[in-house]
Amino acid sequence: MNVLIVLAHPEPRSFNAALAARACDVLRQAGHQVEVSDLHALKFKAVLDADDFSGEREDAEFLRVDREQTHAHSSGGLAADIVAEQEKLSRADLVILQYPMWWFGMPAILKGWADRVFTRGFAYVPGRKYDTGMFRGKRAMVSVTTGTSADTYAPDGIDGDILDILWPVHNGLLRYSGFEVLQPFVSYMPRRLTPEEREAELDRFAQHVLADVPRLFFHPQEDYGPEERLRPGVIARSGFQHNTDR
Amino acid sequence: MNVLIVLAHPEPRSFNAALAARACDVLRQAGHQVEVSDLHALKFKAVLDADDFSGEREDAEFLRVDREQTHAHSSGGLAADIVAEQEKLSRADLVILQYPMWWFGMPAILKGWADRVFTRGFAYVPGRKYDTGMFRGKRAMVSVTTGTSADTYAPDGIDGDILDILWPVHNGLLRYSGFEVLQPFVSYMPRRLTPEEREAELDRFAQHVLADVPRLFFHPQEDYGPEERLRPGVIARSGFQHNTDR
Repeated sequence: MNVLIVLAHPEPRSFNAALAARACDVLRQAGHQVEVSDLHALKFKAVLDADDFSGEREDAEFLRVDREQTHAHSSGGLAADIVAEQEKLSRADLVILQYPMWWFGMPAILKGWADRVFTRGFAYVPGRKYDTGMFRGKRAMVSVTTGTSADTYAPDGIDGDILDILWPVHNGLLRYSGFEVLQPFVSYMPRRLTPEEREAELDRFAQHVLADVPRLFFHPQEDYGPEERLRPGVIARSGFQHNTDR
Repeated sequence: MNVLIVLAHPEPRSFNAALAARACDVLRQAGHQVEVSDLHALKFKAVLDADDFSGEREDAEFLRVDREQTHAHSSGGLAADIVAEQEKLSRADLVILQYPMWWFGMPAILKGWADRVFTRGFAYVPGRKYDTGMFRGKRAMVSVTTGTSADTYAPDGIDGDILDILWPVHNGLLRYSGFEVLQPFVSYMPRRLTPEEREAELDRFAQHVLADVPRLFFHPQEDYGPEERLRPGVIARSGFQHNTDR
């Protein structure tokens, strides 16, 4: 199996970096090929702009992102750093996104990786999304660290259900582009851990990465009608569509 | 009233730019002071890293973001571009975030604005969040454009309820830091609009910006117990805690 780990933390000795390194080690020990995109080490360009298009623009006067992405993807005009990440994605059977929860979302450098690398033409085209998404057959997993407790991210917690907070990433980025989305790994307040507890948490991640992790539920395409809304009679999974536990 | 409009689109003639300009015009005509942070025009640095700290680091060897932000905020050691945005936020009574929905979230340049500008010490400190957040008394509004239809963002739509997708921004970024969060303005598939419909949509935004827009519901602090979970007997608003409509 080919695995791509995308790491987004500015401190090389952070717990996020340690989690990525541990996953890399155990996956290689298990015989898998692992690539790591350490976005800060790569000084990855976070901002999608006209510089993403190295070739001749379809319209050099007006930047319409989806049109230029489609044109550049088909004409070999995407910036080299985008193409390099797309090649890693194409090789990967499993993608792991490793990041700290910053303002209830991905750090900008990782959001920019999604904005710039998941181009139209490569990550989606008309008629290819969700069940029929471009990355169909690949699996993806989010691994996040938090600054607050598991209680605050409980379904009745003040910060909101962790799965609700991750919903735009799980359904929006990953499922939309065709991935089977695995249950995330969440490390709550790792800063509070003693050295021994820290080791145990890294081991817990190693086990999660190697385990047959359940997939999150998403309604299959046939549950949706012509307007892409759930058909009459289809019961939305209670609470939240993606949630298997309520 | 002082208004800050934060615009995140790489094309100066985009519909997002037109929405920001229209809001700016009608608010000024109504006698308000308006500042616009056009993040692409500012070439705003999106990535939070060690360069955010211009002064002496508390720990130059290991970048712990919250600690260095707190230290830099209190010692005048934050990068000038961060301080400039913080001063705009401090002046603002109303903040409008204007952006296209990219991969079900904010473009990286706007997420980076949040990551870098909403520093610990400025946007939150221990014991100051949600009802008692640092920006208590200020109001905020999200204005987004989408590439797909309103049906796909309906509560039973394949892309998920627009309010669920915005939840990490509404509750996580804005409410957490104390803002009263106004109902968002959503412009669905503006690309499909005729010139006349485009004008009408800009007018609809102008009316939304000037109207007494309802605030989104968030459970008040007293609804939460010592573990920051809803107290027994408190009924979570059906469907989703923030949602007043279900």
